[in-house]
Amino acid sequence: QIAEEIYAALPVEGVLSGLKVVITAGPTREAIDPVRFISNRSSGKMGYAVAEAAREAGATVVLVTGPVQIPTPAGIERVPVETADQMLAAVQKQVADADIFIAAAAVSDYKCSEVACQKIKKTSDNMTLALSRAPDVLATIGRSESPPFLVGFAAETENVEANALTKLNSKNLDMIAANKVGEGLAFDKDDNALTLYWRGGKQELTLNSKSALARQLVSVIAERYRSRGKS
Amino acid sequence: QIAEEIYAALPVEGVLSGLKVVITAGPTREAIDPVRFISNRSSGKMGYAVAEAAREAGATVVLVTGPVQIPTPAGIERVPVETADQMLAAVQKQVADADIFIAAAAVSDYKCSEVACQKIKKTSDNMTLALSRAPDVLATIGRSESPPFLVGFAAETENVEANALTKLNSKNLDMIAANKVGEGLAFDKDDNALTLYWRGGKQELTLNSKSALARQLVSVIAERYRSRGKS
Repeated sequence: QIAEEIYAALPVEGVLSGLKVVITAGPTREAIDPVRFISNRSSGKMGYAVAEAAREAGATVVLVTGPVQIPTPAGIERVPVETADQMLAAVQKQVADADIFIAAAAVSDYKCSEVACQKIKKTSDNMTLALSRAPDVLATIGRSESPPFLVGFAAETENVEANALTKLNSKNLDMIAANKVGEGLAFDKDDNALTLYWRGGKQELTLNSKSALARQLVSVIAERYRSRGKS
Repeated sequence: QIAEEIYAALPVEGVLSGLKVVITAGPTREAIDPVRFISNRSSGKMGYAVAEAAREAGATVVLVTGPVQIPTPAGIERVPVETADQMLAAVQKQVADADIFIAAAAVSDYKCSEVACQKIKKTSDNMTLALSRAPDVLATIGRSESPPFLVGFAAETENVEANALTKLNSKNLDMIAANKVGEGLAFDKDDNALTLYWRGGKQELTLNSKSALARQLVSVIAERYRSRGKS
């Protein structure tokens, strides 16, 4: 443990040496009342694996994370958050001096319009929850004045490529990592498969452990990042 | 580990010797779509502590549990479920030959009226979720022909005693364990405080570790269970 921490604190020579990388991971939670919330099945495994791979590649890594059950990898600064609004605030603070932002969190799309102050009593047979859009963390950073190199994820149940390319353009991303969810894929699994898209390019990363995939992803990100100025 | 399992498999002399106790623990999750769900902040710690205490007291214990991050205590049969409907089905099967049912789970009160088959696209700024009542596991067992000794929990943000007594009567319980939530109490904490109510009696269990509280609770349940026929 101590040896691991000393090792992790040493500067590493790698494809991301000297760069600050901000990564989001896990789900967010939106309160319905003090007891209930809306969330999603993201385990955080992919984001944590990417954080570890980026650290191994020499980057200074800040991991902005929703509630998950994964220990913080050594040598990584962990910023815990719960809601989409909290995640956005933490990311905005961290990306100001970052070179790369990788948005692997499954941020809630909607939040409750009004958070009840007391536990809702179940007096009626039916109930409607009024929801409004939660902030889109990645799109907000994409609209900022001088965004870092932006990498998004797209977990889709259908039309993976079309939805991924729409996201790449509409959110002003440099790269998007897309995967199909459902049928036992992706969420809360240790294996995953990704297709990476950028303007004018595409690369398949076939089914592999999330840590192997994360290392491959980091290597493609470093390559695209270094060639960004040249295109 | 092995010694622990052998020990746990041995018959134990205790206040619940020879009795089958069914316990629910943790939250339930109700799907909004294949990715999103509604849940609550129950950690399952109290239910798991009660299961362990009941086993220590000599009972045969079946633990019907929602998704939590706690290892199964030795010598306990664990039945994992996700939704309120699944929890009800598992409990109905288990209570048929049970002597005591302790409902420590935080079962969702509402479920989505219609589960979307594809991930909902966030096309509009606002959205309403139509919810209908999920089954009330404890009340359903309370209405059955010859229910076991029934113990409920009431986590309340206000009017703890009044709400607990209403629940005791309306759900046909033999005992209810009430606590106040909010202000750092109860959910996801290791400490808790409970007030036990039954028809004609009441007992305070002051702030303590959940495992100590669970042992006290089991001892009061055993006492009330044994004197049930005599009142």
